[in-house]
Amino acid sequence: MSGQISISEVNRMPYEEFISIFGNVVEQCSLCAAAVWRQRPFNDVNHLHEAMSTFLDQQPLAGKEGVLRLHPDLAGKLAQSGGLTSDSTKEQTSAGLFNLTENERGKMNSLNQEYTDKFGFPFVICARENKKEAILKGLETRLKNNSEEEALTGVAEVKKICRLRLLDIVDPSSSTKSAL
Amino acid sequence: MSGQISISEVNRMPYEEFISIFGNVVEQCSLCAAAVWRQRPFNDVNHLHEAMSTFLDQQPLAGKEGVLRLHPDLAGKLAQSGGLTSDSTKEQTSAGLFNLTENERGKMNSLNQEYTDKFGFPFVICARENKKEAILKGLETRLKNNSEEEALTGVAEVKKICRLRLLDIVDPSSSTKSAL
Repeated sequence: MSGQISISEVNRMPYEEFISIFGNVVEQCSLCAAAVWRQRPFNDVNHLHEAMSTFLDQQPLAGKEGVLRLHPDLAGKLAQSGGLTSDSTKEQTSAGLFNLTENERGKMNSLNQEYTDKFGFPFVICARENKKEAILKGLETRLKNNSEEEALTGVAEVKKICRLRLLDIVDPSSSTKSAL
Repeated sequence: MSGQISISEVNRMPYEEFISIFGNVVEQCSLCAAAVWRQRPFNDVNHLHEAMSTFLDQQPLAGKEGVLRLHPDLAGKLAQSGGLTSDSTKEQTSAGLFNLTENERGKMNSLNQEYTDKFGFPFVICARENKKEAILKGLETRLKNNSEEEALTGVAEVKKICRLRLLDIVDPSSSTKSAL
């Protein structure tokens, strides 16, 4: 289901409205939306996504790691206690992460712990583009990366998550060109 | 009044505790604390402040502007409706911003509006180091800057605010050296 707000409406938003609507398209990181607001008018949702991606790419390594640290563990304690953001809840549900067998949950928790111990930030993957089997496989594979590679891989996933969250909000067919 | 937590306690904090305690030392910008967590152990509170200052300095211009945008207007609508963070409430009170005459409030609101219209981010000043008269004067003076100068001036004030907030939390006499 695509978003219903046109890009022209987005371009007319005062800052307070913009941040309240887009403040969590990068999980818990309202600085991302705050940073790009000045760059309006955006031509379309892709343009808005590019601005946010550029902001993420320009982060120093510590900032990229910080962006990942603001994400919850997949199928972790926060999910079990109902403490996830509504965006994360929807995404983890679509990947089947609320329907793990006891065996799968044990494996997920132990790999998540190994990953966080190694890298100092949680494993981030675009859950809406992956099912639980692919996520478990991704965890095992990415555990072999070094820390800097893995920060970049994680941020690439953050951009995919951001894109899908933006598409939930903004009508992808709207453009400042078609609207004159 | 100084903070009571020793730097050794800070260095032992798991990420979740660190972010819950230091997540607002830069107003509404938990990314700052998330980014520096990995740099423990910190020698003392100055070392922790330096790590956060470096993170702010490394932000692209859009990021610096975003950091400022996450701050509320001084003596603005949010303050009048009780919507400020507790840190901001305390700081704006100490500057006398809850005791403005009608004339002062009118002037503050009109200068804040002029400032935000010109720069696209709110006027940020370390309210605990300035009284209302100095703040009004600062607003008038800084309105003459260009946008990039003013983003840098604003971020320098963010670092001062951050330092005082850190000193509210961490015992400044504690050091990893004296504690062995």
